[in-house]
Amino acid sequence: MHRYLPILDWGRRYDRATLTADLIAAVIVTIMLIPQSLAYALLAGLPPEAGLYASIVPILLYTVFGTSRALAVGPVAVVSLMTAAAVGQVAEAGTMGYAAAALTLALLSGAMLAGLGLLRMGFIANFLSHPVISGFITASGVLIATSQLKHILGVPASGHTLPEMVDSLWHHLDSINWPTLAIGLAATAFLFWVRKGMKPLLIRLGLSKGTADVATKAGPVLAVVVTTTLVALLGLDAAGVAVVGAVPQSLPPLTMPDLSLDLIGTLALPALLISIIGFVESVSVAQTLAAKRRQRIDPDQELIGLGAANIGAAFTGGYPVTGGFSRSVVNFDAGAETPAAGGFTAIGLAIAALALTPLIFFLPKATLAATIIVAVLSLVDLHVLRTAWTYSRADFAAVSATILLTLGFGVEAGVSAGVILSIALHLWRSSRPHVAEVGLVPGTQHFRNIRRHRVETHPHLVTLRIDESLWFANARFLEDMLLNRVASDDRLRHVVLMCSAVNEVDLSALESLEAINTRLSEQGISLHLSEVKGPVMDRLERSHFLDHISGRIFLSQWDAWVALGGEGPEAAANA
Amino acid sequence: MHRYLPILDWGRRYDRATLTADLIAAVIVTIMLIPQSLAYALLAGLPPEAGLYASIVPILLYTVFGTSRALAVGPVAVVSLMTAAAVGQVAEAGTMGYAAAALTLALLSGAMLAGLGLLRMGFIANFLSHPVISGFITASGVLIATSQLKHILGVPASGHTLPEMVDSLWHHLDSINWPTLAIGLAATAFLFWVRKGMKPLLIRLGLSKGTADVATKAGPVLAVVVTTTLVALLGLDAAGVAVVGAVPQSLPPLTMPDLSLDLIGTLALPALLISIIGFVESVSVAQTLAAKRRQRIDPDQELIGLGAANIGAAFTGGYPVTGGFSRSVVNFDAGAETPAAGGFTAIGLAIAALALTPLIFFLPKATLAATIIVAVLSLVDLHVLRTAWTYSRADFAAVSATILLTLGFGVEAGVSAGVILSIALHLWRSSRPHVAEVGLVPGTQHFRNIRRHRVETHPHLVTLRIDESLWFANARFLEDMLLNRVASDDRLRHVVLMCSAVNEVDLSALESLEAINTRLSEQGISLHLSEVKGPVMDRLERSHFLDHISGRIFLSQWDAWVALGGEGPEAAANA
Repeated sequence: MHRYLPILDWGRRYDRATLTADLIAAVIVTIMLIPQSLAYALLAGLPPEAGLYASIVPILLYTVFGTSRALAVGPVAVVSLMTAAAVGQVAEAGTMGYAAAALTLALLSGAMLAGLGLLRMGFIANFLSHPVISGFITASGVLIATSQLKHILGVPASGHTLPEMVDSLWHHLDSINWPTLAIGLAATAFLFWVRKGMKPLLIRLGLSKGTADVATKAGPVLAVVVTTTLVALLGLDAAGVAVVGAVPQSLPPLTMPDLSLDLIGTLALPALLISIIGFVESVSVAQTLAAKRRQRIDPDQELIGLGAANIGAAFTGGYPVTGGFSRSVVNFDAGAETPAAGGFTAIGLAIAALALTPLIFFLPKATLAATIIVAVLSLVDLHVLRTAWTYSRADFAAVSATILLTLGFGVEAGVSAGVILSIALHLWRSSRPHVAEVGLVPGTQHFRNIRRHRVETHPHLVTLRIDESLWFANARFLEDMLLNRVASDDRLRHVVLMCSAVNEVDLSALESLEAINTRLSEQGISLHLSEVKGPVMDRLERSHFLDHISGRIFLSQWDAWVALGGEGPEAAANA
Repeated sequence: MHRYLPILDWGRRYDRATLTADLIAAVIVTIMLIPQSLAYALLAGLPPEAGLYASIVPILLYTVFGTSRALAVGPVAVVSLMTAAAVGQVAEAGTMGYAAAALTLALLSGAMLAGLGLLRMGFIANFLSHPVISGFITASGVLIATSQLKHILGVPASGHTLPEMVDSLWHHLDSINWPTLAIGLAATAFLFWVRKGMKPLLIRLGLSKGTADVATKAGPVLAVVVTTTLVALLGLDAAGVAVVGAVPQSLPPLTMPDLSLDLIGTLALPALLISIIGFVESVSVAQTLAAKRRQRIDPDQELIGLGAANIGAAFTGGYPVTGGFSRSVVNFDAGAETPAAGGFTAIGLAIAALALTPLIFFLPKATLAATIIVAVLSLVDLHVLRTAWTYSRADFAAVSATILLTLGFGVEAGVSAGVILSIALHLWRSSRPHVAEVGLVPGTQHFRNIRRHRVETHPHLVTLRIDESLWFANARFLEDMLLNRVASDDRLRHVVLMCSAVNEVDLSALESLEAINTRLSEQGISLHLSEVKGPVMDRLERSHFLDHISGRIFLSQWDAWVALGGEGPEAAANA
């Protein structure tokens, strides 16, 4: 029971001090979340209130089922972009069908997350490599910022890939709405200044560092208030400045996702990708924050928490949600002690949905777009390309393919290609393992590559260290390599395979070893193994290989050297 | 030039002795191939002459481009079954569209094989594990034998999976044609006897072993001659015995495959599977035979040879072909010295197509079905299930899934599932590596698992040997495992990662190592590495990790033991 309901643990120890800390954090996060929720709904192609609704019930459900003390669940930039791409395949933005499909997507994603959690399959997220994630987030940041330019320019552009977006913007350049552009640029410039210049200024003006921090978080709210007032006073909506307009004044409505099989079939793969990307993003934030306070999170229970949050979003007018980076960090910095802080945030947002929505009628969409652009540009990190290039070409290939395909063909193609390519490259490399011929490092019992170290060898004994597990993809490689090495050397009487790096020998490789043993025997050469690990040896003992092998199994390579090296008188030094 | 045209090598050294050997082999193979080609065309759902045509030009082209001295290319059982399954999706057997689609399939398969060969991508065949291939061949044997029962019973059954076939046969049991059944059972019994009992009998009757062998190969021809004569003399075709009927008397016609994009789209995946399965089957036969004469084959050039053969089949009324096991072994045993033997076989079959086809009008399909059944039952090998079960559960899962899915859902589902499952299991295992805590084997410089060996340890030093390359799928596992191990031990001052089995450290794992280094430093513990391999060290030197690591890099674990072990006075013995 406690395993699936972490609230039972922390709820019992809840006291007044914790309550105060949680309440303060909730107020700060609520102020930050109001414009952010509206903006991300815009990014997802949904009405603004969907962003608020997606922040209320999901937070409450995560509070019950989640394990992170600081994670703030709700709409986030990347998942909003992925939602727009997925739902855009089945309906036109702004229609009833679009909002209904977003609910279905949230339900599918929630069911998948919860299902993976109950099956304890959180490990599948490990198959997204860091470079693929970095590349995907960077490219998504570029896509998101570009997608918002239409709101800054006041033109009706569209598209889900960078070429589509740029082309569409280019064709609408003649219809720029200048008042919108003025508001958009001013808001963007102001928000960049808030990020970089406002806090030092406030501190110079005598505010404490904490107060300056909170004031900085309220920057977007200030931009919202000022531009909304401006539009309302000057009647700029009549001059073509797009505004948010009428937003229903209500608590989250009870909604029913469309469960037609056709729709589910189309949205299943996008929902899976959204689930995994959302989970990876969320869990990495949660683990970073937990480590700072020496707490632990349980990834499988996190899947259940996020699953519950998404199912909640599906039935209360929201769309797919996950744990957001910036909001969680704010929550943490503001001193949130328990998930109850999230509950209080939900209450704050519910009050906003009930009371504040009439005030945002004149809120310009350009201001929301500016909020998004400033937020996502911090996601763009091209540094990873350089690091990957220096360190490993395979990682570079994965990260650059992910970036290019995400920009050129959209989020789903990008992340799928990144995952497949990184796994394929890993498989390819382990199908062509590094093999070192080793000799004795003089004065030690240690054996190293004859090409890299000054070592001793015997002319009638060759020791090959295979730097890979032996499995079906490299079984034939092993045969070819070994028989080639042996063919060129007449004096050879013993071949030792040093198995210190062989962590597995599967059935295909076992058959190859048997074939090698037979072929070497025919040539009068004995095959020996050394440093076979326990688990590998356990398995070999269950086969007939050990009965047939022409040579011996040595505990250490040194034992093999002593036993077999003594048979030849000469020991040649090798550079 | 010589690389792509091996004929230039062996053609230059061709002499009279080689000619004689090749001619004798060709006669024997031709006699064997006539009934086999007709039968496999029947299995593929094509008119019988397609089997002959598929054996003529393809053999000639392989002779020019192939590298194996003994491989005999033409229709084979498994590829014929796969052809029936693929082409059956787009057309009804017996129609013009069906034959045209088979040509398209051959062209696609030929283009893919040649393309893979030119790109030197023969290695992708390595990703089919031995258990998956064995399971697939076994299940295909069962499917093929079952599919032929309708010809033995003389009923119009259908289906591409075992349940479909059995169900269809069951519903037609009341319409059994008894003369057909009599011929079918007699032919099957005779052919089984030819395999098991005829050769010993002939040898007892005074024939030499070689002659007895040749006579045995002619067994199917004898069955064909006897049953055809019987049907013709008794007029059994009027009694409902299905016969081959009129076969055009002609050389292979020039045909043009249907290249509509729709058809290509549907057949692309089946063509890829046929190409890879055909290549694997062919290359393993070719390598086995080449090894017996200490010759070598070039797998990439084999792809080109098989590609040319299939493209030839597409333009001359054939269907997908590959190097067959039984025909190649017969060719080899009969003494074929060069690919010219194949050329002579093609001439023999061309003469058969021109002159002999009127003679097979009354050949009962039941006889051909008997030929197939007897041939494919030797493919069925359930022994692999037992071997896999004893040796490794992962291999057992792959082989049993392949068998069950091939039988239950058809050849494409079976082989795809087998490949995907075996790769997924490999990835899963390497994402949860074995980690051993090691200590010094007394009196040596060798370190082994403290749970398996009696070794010495130091209380303030823990050495973990990670039995896997460090890559993205196990990077998080490494962090969790290491930090858990450290958390439970207050006396710890040094952690050594013994990297003898670490063949790669990718960027994700590097980031995890950096995180581990930071976390351990915070707890006052130094992180060291030992036995880092050359290629891994080269790469680490290109990152900043070596600047930040709190401990040292030791050439050998013994060096680490000496340097770090001395810092603590006590050395505890551990069982």
